[in-house]
Amino acid sequence: MTAKRPDVSSTVSDLRRRVAAWRAAGERVALIPTMGALHEGHLSLVRLGRTRAHRTVTSIFVNPTQFAPTEDFNTYPRTFDDDLAKLATVGCDLVWAPTATEMYPDGFATRVVPAGAAEGLETDFRPHFFGGVATVCCKLFTQSGADFACFGEKDYQQLCVIRQMVRDLDLPLEILPGATIRESDGLAMSSRNRYLSANERSRAVVIHDVIRAVAEAARDGRHQAVIAEGTAKLSAAGFRTIDYVTVRDAETLKDWDRESGRPGRVLAAAWLGDTRLIDNVAV
Amino acid sequence: MTAKRPDVSSTVSDLRRRVAAWRAAGERVALIPTMGALHEGHLSLVRLGRTRAHRTVTSIFVNPTQFAPTEDFNTYPRTFDDDLAKLATVGCDLVWAPTATEMYPDGFATRVVPAGAAEGLETDFRPHFFGGVATVCCKLFTQSGADFACFGEKDYQQLCVIRQMVRDLDLPLEILPGATIRESDGLAMSSRNRYLSANERSRAVVIHDVIRAVAEAARDGRHQAVIAEGTAKLSAAGFRTIDYVTVRDAETLKDWDRESGRPGRVLAAAWLGDTRLIDNVAV
Repeated sequence: MTAKRPDVSSTVSDLRRRVAAWRAAGERVALIPTMGALHEGHLSLVRLGRTRAHRTVTSIFVNPTQFAPTEDFNTYPRTFDDDLAKLATVGCDLVWAPTATEMYPDGFATRVVPAGAAEGLETDFRPHFFGGVATVCCKLFTQSGADFACFGEKDYQQLCVIRQMVRDLDLPLEILPGATIRESDGLAMSSRNRYLSANERSRAVVIHDVIRAVAEAARDGRHQAVIAEGTAKLSAAGFRTIDYVTVRDAETLKDWDRESGRPGRVLAAAWLGDTRLIDNVAV
Repeated sequence: MTAKRPDVSSTVSDLRRRVAAWRAAGERVALIPTMGALHEGHLSLVRLGRTRAHRTVTSIFVNPTQFAPTEDFNTYPRTFDDDLAKLATVGCDLVWAPTATEMYPDGFATRVVPAGAAEGLETDFRPHFFGGVATVCCKLFTQSGADFACFGEKDYQQLCVIRQMVRDLDLPLEILPGATIRESDGLAMSSRNRYLSANERSRAVVIHDVIRAVAEAARDGRHQAVIAEGTAKLSAAGFRTIDYVTVRDAETLKDWDRESGRPGRVLAAAWLGDTRLIDNVAV
């Protein structure tokens, strides 16, 4: 027996018509923004949305504006049929799958430019990234009129940036964060993990081991020493470039002040072969 | 007999509670964004809103982010009591009057950056302007959840920029343009006209005379010659700096191609003493 596949909308007017019908019946709606290539992390966000809303909409859109010309837009995995089958198993009601032209018609020009939480970290290495993410997420929110939007903690800075945008622009929806889902060895699930060779895959979990050790050390204020050790450990495991391993304020993403009593977050990004991995854990 | 003054909201939560109550009763809502110092032009926009919506909300907020440090933020006329009395005469239901802190709380950082229609003209002379306008209008729209927003054609490029933003960001509301309201001699009404001395006021209408002559000439393709004559006429009338007198495509604001058959718009901006006047008319 196969679960019913979700319906697919590909125009804003069709999406709005369907959401309006739900709303007229008093139902609330959760949006799960994705770029497809779905894994258990995405499915957990659909389940999270269902705990708060009557209806879930998963958007599948590989957003060109958040890729630099040198990045993997053309090779990013596109597995639409498989995605629909997976979404059927978690009771997703609708897939919002606009074309690039529906999202960015001729003459499109307005940008949402985030700052605050968007400064530093990923922005130092992917300066185009959060502008693209903020603009497309703002559009996804206003297109769908969702009451909730679910984002994984795996992309922790992105979650902070989206929260800041929603607060700053008074967007009338609530952001629901979902815990990072990991493979059995601890590697954070990511659509890009499929780029890893078998040999790289066996070493990828070192990034998680390192940030856990930094978080443990941070409780006693020993994190700087453990960051240095961890960086060496990543290099020894074959990570060719380490973009950052750092402890930040969990909300503002500015430098963490342990004495303040505010929660900290350990964040890391590093390259294993041609694959850039990111991960984070709470202090 | 005095008409009932509109209620005043000063927090987003209070505004949303009131609008939600209207919505629950099946009523639609029009927003009229203003910076106060209301004149007949603003009041005509409230009347316009009432032709389409059951309820009208007039926002009064002198938005600091659309003024350059050299501009008139501190001296911009603030006439709140008088504004409420005028709004009572046209049946406005609610005034949305946030404080600067309610609009831009500590840590505010996200900007809406318009392009397309925002390029050139005003942006050449006030490069900060449309970024401030787009961001605050986006917020006013999402704060109020209005179905309609009314903007005067007096600020024609602003109207085009807002339309582009609404289209680009899929904001779920309709922009209603209102015709420019003029004094008996033809001068476009503006809150800044009160800066003019009696002597300046008597010459201010020359800007309207000039753009009407350019529009007339444009029908026969003779506008370049009449722009040159008009510029001389403005100088002779004592306009000290003429920022632009130009004919543009009425929608894109790019150069007007008369042969295309597309509608044109004559736009002008010029300084009379310390007051910058703008005006526009259809070809």
